[in-house]
Amino acid sequence: MTDFRLTALAQSLPDTVPFVGPETEERARSRLFDARLGANENVFGPSPIAVRVMAETQHWMYGDPESFELREALADHLGIRPDMIVVGEGIDGLLGYLVRIMVGPGDAVVTSDGAYPTFNYHVAGYGGVLHKVPYRHDDHEDLAALFKKAAEVKAKLVYLANPDNPMGTAHDGTDIVAALAHLPKDTLLVLDEAYLECAPPQVALPLPMDDPRVIRMRTFSKAYGLAGARVGYALGAPELIRAFEKVRNHFGMNRAAQAGALAALDDQTWLRSVQARIVASRNRIADIARKNGLKPIPSAANFVAIDCGGGPEYAKTVLHEMIARGVFIRMPFAEPQNRCIRISCGTPAQLDILAEVLPVAIRASEMG
Amino acid sequence: MTDFRLTALAQSLPDTVPFVGPETEERARSRLFDARLGANENVFGPSPIAVRVMAETQHWMYGDPESFELREALADHLGIRPDMIVVGEGIDGLLGYLVRIMVGPGDAVVTSDGAYPTFNYHVAGYGGVLHKVPYRHDDHEDLAALFKKAAEVKAKLVYLANPDNPMGTAHDGTDIVAALAHLPKDTLLVLDEAYLECAPPQVALPLPMDDPRVIRMRTFSKAYGLAGARVGYALGAPELIRAFEKVRNHFGMNRAAQAGALAALDDQTWLRSVQARIVASRNRIADIARKNGLKPIPSAANFVAIDCGGGPEYAKTVLHEMIARGVFIRMPFAEPQNRCIRISCGTPAQLDILAEVLPVAIRASEMG
Repeated sequence: MTDFRLTALAQSLPDTVPFVGPETEERARSRLFDARLGANENVFGPSPIAVRVMAETQHWMYGDPESFELREALADHLGIRPDMIVVGEGIDGLLGYLVRIMVGPGDAVVTSDGAYPTFNYHVAGYGGVLHKVPYRHDDHEDLAALFKKAAEVKAKLVYLANPDNPMGTAHDGTDIVAALAHLPKDTLLVLDEAYLECAPPQVALPLPMDDPRVIRMRTFSKAYGLAGARVGYALGAPELIRAFEKVRNHFGMNRAAQAGALAALDDQTWLRSVQARIVASRNRIADIARKNGLKPIPSAANFVAIDCGGGPEYAKTVLHEMIARGVFIRMPFAEPQNRCIRISCGTPAQLDILAEVLPVAIRASEMG
Repeated sequence: MTDFRLTALAQSLPDTVPFVGPETEERARSRLFDARLGANENVFGPSPIAVRVMAETQHWMYGDPESFELREALADHLGIRPDMIVVGEGIDGLLGYLVRIMVGPGDAVVTSDGAYPTFNYHVAGYGGVLHKVPYRHDDHEDLAALFKKAAEVKAKLVYLANPDNPMGTAHDGTDIVAALAHLPKDTLLVLDEAYLECAPPQVALPLPMDDPRVIRMRTFSKAYGLAGARVGYALGAPELIRAFEKVRNHFGMNRAAQAGALAALDDQTWLRSVQARIVASRNRIADIARKNGLKPIPSAANFVAIDCGGGPEYAKTVLHEMIARGVFIRMPFAEPQNRCIRISCGTPAQLDILAEVLPVAIRASEMG
């Protein structure tokens, strides 16, 4: 490899992926999954209007490098100015850009142990040093501990997902505001709000979008049902948002995706119907879990983490038994959250499969 | 800005874009262009089968992070192994990843003065030092000078577009092979083949795809007509290709774009029909230029650079007069190529508009 004169940083990085996709697992088992409930996708799908708009897109044209219309529409929707918004290739892409402009070799970054691995991937990829704080015993990310650690290590960034992934727990926005008083002024809070539209209103952060202490990451991948399109956006102070122009892939946005996101945003009726179906689906997943003697963690996202009651090895066995029976699910990476499996919301038909397969998988796990 | 503790490198970067999109210009003039002939898009569009496949995509699912099927199909098509292929968000995205793994602050990189600005943007963005070599007097990139300069500055990368953008000139592959004998073994040739499918067969490089001296960048944006989809791929030695796994945005690919590219690759009949239309369109653009007393540069790409005969200021005036009359074109950035305007291939109807507007723009330029 050194023949290629990679940078010292690149040489030090593993060539592994943050996590494997369901297609990879399907290829490994030479069979499609009967229920795809592992990637926190939105099985209810995007607005039919968005689907039509994407189908009618002239794919021969590059997308608008400014995502002008989408930013204008988001600004209208949120009651803010477009210069507080940058659109990018999903939250994953935007996290990469943010880490790139903020974090150099040796810079400190704080996150929770077991939180979103793709953020960690970017921090490691730019040579940053990750400091991890445990979740609270109630499976919430620990605001006080995160911000205290950030002060201690003089972190450039502190990451918080609200609602949280993989546990689905959420803080009220007012609690985050209160905790922010203890965050050093020169540490930026990266607030990943991918699941915000799945959560009750009090989860939103009641601060102006241009508050310089926070950058919020949002997406069309979850409640809006457009994971395949790759459209995320970040909201923050104009000076910070403008810095993304220094490094982002200006012509990186898919044109149909830009149009689809615009149409999806415009169809709030569809969004509300999806939100209702997510709530119903969460309730049924929790119900199925309880019927099987497992403990669902209350969720504000589009998935439910379920404590299998037997520790990490047992949860892993249940996961494998589910996957072997055609139900794609995932589980948290780190202790003590990895006592759980994580099941994304599904259609009634998919949850029928879940209800059927889960007890069988549990019996198989108990025997194994 | 320093309030945000950007890295020193990020602070030093301008927040400007490599070049503005046609939509930005349309907004500035509050009117759509009558002919969009500036971005080297392919007005003949993608295979209708690809369009249908994209329309039928389930957008709620993430794309396959391995782009497995597309890589398998490309491998079949090229007669190589999938581990010599990485798929990414257009050549722009792949150039960014390549520069990231290879180029750190102070590392030398060589390109031609006036070649693709987005490559330069990435090199600057990672702190690399660009060394620029002039084009030859015949408007070809200067192979001998490029590789000599690479040896002189111990460059990590040397960039060559074949066919060239913005001039449309091309080298025979055998000439590049001969020149490679003079390239240091530890300099990697970045061969941008975005326009290869528009060129005659002898332009292809007759070397194995896994030759460790070269990485080739190809795209579905040009001859395949899928610029809006953002699908590029790089071909090279497996060890080098594998290094992209260290940094790329694994879930960054648009799912419909993956499916569309696969279908487009499969429809070689459509590609051939587009190639024929590109040749006819190039010929007609050259003809229109000559009829107006201008000198077209022979092109192997999907555009024609036209020497307006009056130097850079004159070419700029012609460009502005064209744009003011609803014809979007671009021009080279650097001397002496900026004596030219650059016109992308168009439909017969668009070239009718070109034939009508060009003489008017020239008259206006001569009066101005």
